[in-house]
Amino acid sequence: MHLSRDQLLDFVRPHLKQSRYEHTVRVTDTAVELAIQYGADVQKAETASILHDFAKHKSKEELKHWISNDERVPNDLLDYHHELWHGPAGALMLENELEIKDPEILSAIACHTSGKKNMSLLDKVVFLADYIEPGRNFEGVEEVRELAKSDLDNACLQSLVNTVHFLTNNKRTVYPDTINAYNALV
Amino acid sequence: MHLSRDQLLDFVRPHLKQSRYEHTVRVTDTAVELAIQYGADVQKAETASILHDFAKHKSKEELKHWISNDERVPNDLLDYHHELWHGPAGALMLENELEIKDPEILSAIACHTSGKKNMSLLDKVVFLADYIEPGRNFEGVEEVRELAKSDLDNACLQSLVNTVHFLTNNKRTVYPDTINAYNALV
Repeated sequence: MHLSRDQLLDFVRPHLKQSRYEHTVRVTDTAVELAIQYGADVQKAETASILHDFAKHKSKEELKHWISNDERVPNDLLDYHHELWHGPAGALMLENELEIKDPEILSAIACHTSGKKNMSLLDKVVFLADYIEPGRNFEGVEEVRELAKSDLDNACLQSLVNTVHFLTNNKRTVYPDTINAYNALV
Repeated sequence: MHLSRDQLLDFVRPHLKQSRYEHTVRVTDTAVELAIQYGADVQKAETASILHDFAKHKSKEELKHWISNDERVPNDLLDYHHELWHGPAGALMLENELEIKDPEILSAIACHTSGKKNMSLLDKVVFLADYIEPGRNFEGVEEVRELAKSDLDNACLQSLVNTVHFLTNNKRTVYPDTINAYNALV
């Protein structure tokens, strides 16, 4: 089943706050640009981006339910910050509810917050678009935007470094997949 | 078999360059102080510290041989920087050659560079002594020395943060056990 951009946007809209919906549109535009630039599948980048934050506002209990009932998601994820749960849980929910079956799209949705060991081109496009979309204002985001113009891997790497610095400066746990993603890109 | 401080120092001396031997003596003095301060086993702290760099100057081939022939050491260690090999390999070599059988001492030797998930009091004492001994001059070491006066865990945590920052700033891989050690202390 193919859903158009508008159908997908109509689908996610009721699940997102207005500001989150606007973020989603910006991520989608950014991901489409990156996909064109780096030769990723544009339609998959668009679909994954529109859906990436589908589960963002679901309750912790619902996210936990999906994660703990699917052996494809490592259960230690639940020992880490709940901010990391909506990607993997969202992929599972969409696989069921929207019958999204494409493993590349589901992977990009699942790992968009943490990264993972061997990210595909599509994973990197969505991950980076989420990090550099024009509404973002992280420390160091401008440097990553510059890198994104010429080097997808280096841009992803620098965004991971920034994330690790942010987390460790604030004495927050670092999910192992974030370090796996970093190590794989070094 | 109990070996005295002098016997242990005589044992390691021929395996170490002069500067490394002097580092070892400083680590030992620092570890004994920390052990007294935090109630760790002083004799074990002394033994582990004297022996911690036993394998530092062994060839990569020899270190690799020991690591790949013992299933207690995760083999992915060999995918990471060889600087990380001398701790685990040294513990295995000492277990065999010096008949050091105390698992607490062997653990402290094995994890003194990378840290690990659930470090014991002795692990932390040796790890921290190696980081703050008076000859060290890392960026941020003075802050860790201050923390070490009042809070062993926080001092270890800050040394791990400094190490992760150093590695990521230089785009060097971060061994997962270092993040595991960090996460466990957060």
